[in-house]
Amino acid sequence: MDPTKIHLDEKEMPTSWYNVQPDLPTPLAPPLHPGTGQPLGPDDLAPLFPMEMIMQEVSQERYIDIPEEVQSIYHLWRPTPLIRAHRLEKALDTPAKIYYKYEGVSPAGSHKLNTAVAQAYYNKQEGVRRIATETGAGQWGSALALGCQYFGIELKVYMVRVSYGQKPYRRILMETWGANVVASPSEDTNAGRTVLAQEPGHPGSLGMAISEAVEDAATHDDTKYSLGSVLNHVLLHQTVVGQEAKKQLEKVDAYPDIIVGCIGGGSNFAGTFLPFIPDKLKGNKVRIICAEPEACPSLTKGLYAYDFGDAVGMAPLLKMFTLGHTFVPPLIHAGGLRYHGMAPIICHLYDQKLVEAAAVHQTATFESAVLFARTEGIVPAPEPSHAIRVAINEANKCKQSGEAKTILLALSGHGHFDMAAYDEYLSGRLTDHAYSKEKVDEALAQLPKVGS
Amino acid sequence: MDPTKIHLDEKEMPTSWYNVQPDLPTPLAPPLHPGTGQPLGPDDLAPLFPMEMIMQEVSQERYIDIPEEVQSIYHLWRPTPLIRAHRLEKALDTPAKIYYKYEGVSPAGSHKLNTAVAQAYYNKQEGVRRIATETGAGQWGSALALGCQYFGIELKVYMVRVSYGQKPYRRILMETWGANVVASPSEDTNAGRTVLAQEPGHPGSLGMAISEAVEDAATHDDTKYSLGSVLNHVLLHQTVVGQEAKKQLEKVDAYPDIIVGCIGGGSNFAGTFLPFIPDKLKGNKVRIICAEPEACPSLTKGLYAYDFGDAVGMAPLLKMFTLGHTFVPPLIHAGGLRYHGMAPIICHLYDQKLVEAAAVHQTATFESAVLFARTEGIVPAPEPSHAIRVAINEANKCKQSGEAKTILLALSGHGHFDMAAYDEYLSGRLTDHAYSKEKVDEALAQLPKVGS
Repeated sequence: MDPTKIHLDEKEMPTSWYNVQPDLPTPLAPPLHPGTGQPLGPDDLAPLFPMEMIMQEVSQERYIDIPEEVQSIYHLWRPTPLIRAHRLEKALDTPAKIYYKYEGVSPAGSHKLNTAVAQAYYNKQEGVRRIATETGAGQWGSALALGCQYFGIELKVYMVRVSYGQKPYRRILMETWGANVVASPSEDTNAGRTVLAQEPGHPGSLGMAISEAVEDAATHDDTKYSLGSVLNHVLLHQTVVGQEAKKQLEKVDAYPDIIVGCIGGGSNFAGTFLPFIPDKLKGNKVRIICAEPEACPSLTKGLYAYDFGDAVGMAPLLKMFTLGHTFVPPLIHAGGLRYHGMAPIICHLYDQKLVEAAAVHQTATFESAVLFARTEGIVPAPEPSHAIRVAINEANKCKQSGEAKTILLALSGHGHFDMAAYDEYLSGRLTDHAYSKEKVDEALAQLPKVGS
Repeated sequence: MDPTKIHLDEKEMPTSWYNVQPDLPTPLAPPLHPGTGQPLGPDDLAPLFPMEMIMQEVSQERYIDIPEEVQSIYHLWRPTPLIRAHRLEKALDTPAKIYYKYEGVSPAGSHKLNTAVAQAYYNKQEGVRRIATETGAGQWGSALALGCQYFGIELKVYMVRVSYGQKPYRRILMETWGANVVASPSEDTNAGRTVLAQEPGHPGSLGMAISEAVEDAATHDDTKYSLGSVLNHVLLHQTVVGQEAKKQLEKVDAYPDIIVGCIGGGSNFAGTFLPFIPDKLKGNKVRIICAEPEACPSLTKGLYAYDFGDAVGMAPLLKMFTLGHTFVPPLIHAGGLRYHGMAPIICHLYDQKLVEAAAVHQTATFESAVLFARTEGIVPAPEPSHAIRVAINEANKCKQSGEAKTILLALSGHGHFDMAAYDEYLSGRLTDHAYSKEKVDEALAQLPKVGS
């Protein structure tokens, strides 16, 4: 029988990130300038990001060295465990073998810290003294707060006002790690002041917070901006996850038939499955299933077109499956999956049918999350609970067919700061939210007319 | 240089618990019946605990096998990491080497799960269908909820009403793991109903909750009672922690000069240091320092005498350092350290000068906790932050003296459910609470007149 936890030695950890770009059958569509619609050059991004990260964004090198200082910080919690879900399998009475890669052991509680540390490092290398970013529920903000703290970089977080009020614990977490957190819209930027002048108690939005953070970075010489998902360099940094998982599976002579993960911006799951793409391109039959919420089904219901990366039309245009940048998804608990678009790398692979997608409803995900918590112990975050649901569906199919498939599940983080959502579910107050087709059509009608 | 995380293979994990009793220079004073003052026999405890645990309570066997089923559940999160605090050492500019053993990776977030799983197992073995317990802030209740869930045992938790209202997240955690949680005093017991009849909105107390849980167990044939600290068998189960830490230190050729941990009931720290006691008895100079709060300084200011294990005088009399069972400590955030007494094994060793104690104030612990979070990343619970403070004090002494001492720190859990306390500290609202000498004297005057 497999051991429960499959360890990897610090010495066996990946020392480089895997960059899928040179292996793609056709190149990625370039990002376009939001104003001109022309392809973006490195110089266009230089005010926002350090040059090393901009180069990673377009790199054609298959492997990019992980700086030693970043590796030494990774060692604080990496390698993360790969766990054979013996108890969940038994509860499902399935012949399937389920392995989950658990990123919740990071001090920030999710995979986000993998890129936060790398981004803080590259900013530090280029002499950046201060970073500005936005956060919704606080998952990204808290990871970056710790990342910046490790390198002595100041961090200003614009936190969507409604979350600032409703999710104080993540704000406190950011402050514990030394970040300066303000409710957005704030009095600290022109964008914020303009909105507040019109509507003093404005609840804010992620788009608004992005505007504030970008303005902050653009108007301070010593300040850069930072993003926690979607972009190629972010996905790149997350490939430590999949590389470790692959080695851990090798230790028990296993290779996945199915890889499942949740997608919001796409970095967690891409980080897990990208290292398996070369095998797939060589003919391996592994199925890669992206789990997304029915409330925000970018891949399964979106259009593959150029759209703004942000909600307000200030960020670069990216070719992606999108529900339209003006589409506001219903308020599901998996806040990290409420993004209108999707990482261009994932969209490219989905378009080429190298990855699949499945949309699931909120109550079904919590049903699976509770089963997972009661068998494996870990209380998962609402986001990866979408992946748990899809993994369970596949394991149930195995029960029907009698096939002992190997399933690799990306468990991106714990739900310690999401207990209110569990309370809603357990007390029967949780409801499903389908996306509105009318609203998506409305939003898609407002796509920019470029590059298509 | 040491690796950051010192792993242990599943194969190298301890397969037995270490029982210090046969190694004690003089035997422990026996527990006495709360009514008669006579030594307790196994039969007196049989209505409350399974016989196997009662036997462990008085066992003279040096090693007690960990049942295979318990080991296999331990493997879900054990061995826990031993981490060299390179970054904290650097921040302190100390020659000391600090290693912390981190129990927060358990799904329940603390060491408590080590005994919860064992206790659930022994109850299951003896056909117990249901367990009743009490919990304050919910740390123990949540660990036992998961422990019971693993073995299909029903759990009823009497949660102190004021915590039930103020700490909903831990209640939800218990419910997620399938426990039935009620606010205590409740309508479900005579003890609860009597109090509620006199004062309908009674805020409850740990003593009251114990009364309810014990009554529940005593009045239901299929139900036993369970305790999360203090007793010998609980400390025994925690010795996996120290045994692992010892092996991990051996891997880097280290042996502690100082071991530091926090003490409330004593099980976390005893679990860590007990495996080092045989060496100490053979002449090793390792210093073992118990960190306790100034608000509840059982060892440093208590009296060594027989006192009730609970606050109301229903539980057995234990020979321990006590502030008096009627003493109500100030409301510090480290709720797990607000116990009037201390594990008899620790008291015995303290009395024989084999372990030391140091009392620290609340704001000093949070100052250290924030430094720890900003260097190592992990946000510690308020309880082990007391140990962090003492470890830092010792590391600072090393800086003065130039000695490169090796410090082993017991980091018993994370603070994800304690962020409100961090908020108080960071916003300057946190204050210190000294214990009141008058109130302790008052409480000590009410000690039972037995066995001394």
